Amino acid sequence: MTRWIRFEHEGRVQFGTLEGETIRVHEGDMFAGARDTGRTVGLEAVKLLTPCVPTKMVALWNNYRALAEKLGQATPPEPLWFIKANSSFHPGGQPIRVPASYAGKVIYEGELGIVIGKRTARVSEAEAPAHIFGYTCINDVTAVELLKKDASFDQWSRSKSFDTFGVFGPVIATGLDPAKLVIRTMLNGQERQNYPASDMFFGPAQLVSLISQDLTFEAGDVICCGTSVGVGSMKPGSDVVVSIEGIGELANRFE
Amino acid sequence: MTRWIRFEHEGRVQFGTLEGETIRVHEGDMFAGARDTGRTVGLEAVKLLTPCVPTKMVALWNNYRALAEKLGQATPPEPLWFIKANSSFHPGGQPIRVPASYAGKVIYEGELGIVIGKRTARVSEAEAPAHIFGYTCINDVTAVELLKKDASFDQWSRSKSFDTFGVFGPVIATGLDPAKLVIRTMLNGQERQNYPASDMFFGPAQLVSLISQDLTFEAGDVICCGTSVGVGSMKPGSDVVVSIEGIGELANRFE
Repeated sequence: MTRWIRFEHEGRVQFGTLEGETIRVHEGDMFAGARDTGRTVGLEAVKLLTPCVPTKMVALWNNYRALAEKLGQATPPEPLWFIKANSSFHPGGQPIRVPASYAGKVIYEGELGIVIGKRTARVSEAEAPAHIFGYTCINDVTAVELLKKDASFDQWSRSKSFDTFGVFGPVIATGLDPAKLVIRTMLNGQERQNYPASDMFFGPAQLVSLISQDLTFEAGDVICCGTSVGVGSMKPGSDVVVSIEGIGELANRFE
Repeated sequence: MTRWIRFEHEGRVQFGTLEGETIRVHEGDMFAGARDTGRTVGLEAVKLLTPCVPTKMVALWNNYRALAEKLGQATPPEPLWFIKANSSFHPGGQPIRVPASYAGKVIYEGELGIVIGKRTARVSEAEAPAHIFGYTCINDVTAVELLKKDASFDQWSRSKSFDTFGVFGPVIATGLDPAKLVIRTMLNGQERQNYPASDMFFGPAQLVSLISQDLTFEAGDVICCGTSVGVGSMKPGSDVVVSIEGIGELANRFE
């Protein structure tokens, strides 16, 4: 397993692999032939960035059996998704900002994120795993009172695209079996979500295959797999940590 | 008025200003201090590209009075929008592709597009015009039978994000008064849309101001202002032209 991280150090954007608290600095293309420079830097000395720069972020709704059951939602016949604006992308370690233009409830949604490794168009489910570079932690932050505020038009993209609401990282972990992953979310140190990725209606290979029938993914694009039970609201000052064993902890304050 | 165009010529991506059928090649940043190289190239010798590369495309629903009246929609209290995937961006002159994964009706929607000129966050309506670089033609292509296919979740982003469905160009025209623009769409040579931009519920300055309260725009980002009456379906082989006097003609075949 390799854990890729992107960061700013001495004024330069760099990337590398994280081993314990040490980053082995690499150069080239993270997704195609990155080279180890031999240099290392301590994790404590860098400013975390999002682990990659997606050209788009596709996010699922209603993709977990437990949450569908709780909400009385039917099994979706196909993946149901929206797009989060690129301007919302935000790394761990930096505050999620309370919107200036919205006074309602803001919720966290801890999720598993798929990171695409190469251009992907119309792949089969069998081909899809070779197009997945790795996995990351997602906090799909949502201004939830906007979602159904207008009776004629559900505002999925808007409620989830405020600046800093597309939180992902801290790393992209390769070589994991997604069926074994467990997503946990802690709010102010208390566990609020703890659910297995295996409860998805559409697992990662199916999502990549089905969505890639319609549109083309590029290396670094992210699919947020949807959330399950335990979402809740953040108050200014709340600390939220999305944690997936084998990937890491995506920690942010809401303020 | 200046009309900016981006193109491929002799294997290189270049940009410049269009004067009649001649492009004056520029270098640098289209949005900040582009320099005239003194070189020219004929429009007929280049392959058109999208006139810029947006980091996002925000698209309005229900933004014209005439269409709202026809459909019995209420006046929206605020702009209602979704995001089109960046992978859908597509220039004039190249075919809009019939989806392989969808057999239903595909419609054209001729629209006015706003192109942002610089980073824009929380600007007032009075400040907004200085953040607008110019205007372009949009064809907001839609796999319309997907939109309401699932009763629990309207698929706005998906139905409008198939590869090649985010058509815009051929140029970005600066120095226009948007209130005077008229959007026309021709299907196989017959006029199907002909409506004034002045019929918008939220005009360009309002859109930029209101949406920028939630998220940050970057130079080159595009806001599709929504369409009005006269949308209709394309058949394989259909020719569609979105035409706005002062900007140009965005022409594509659907095949």
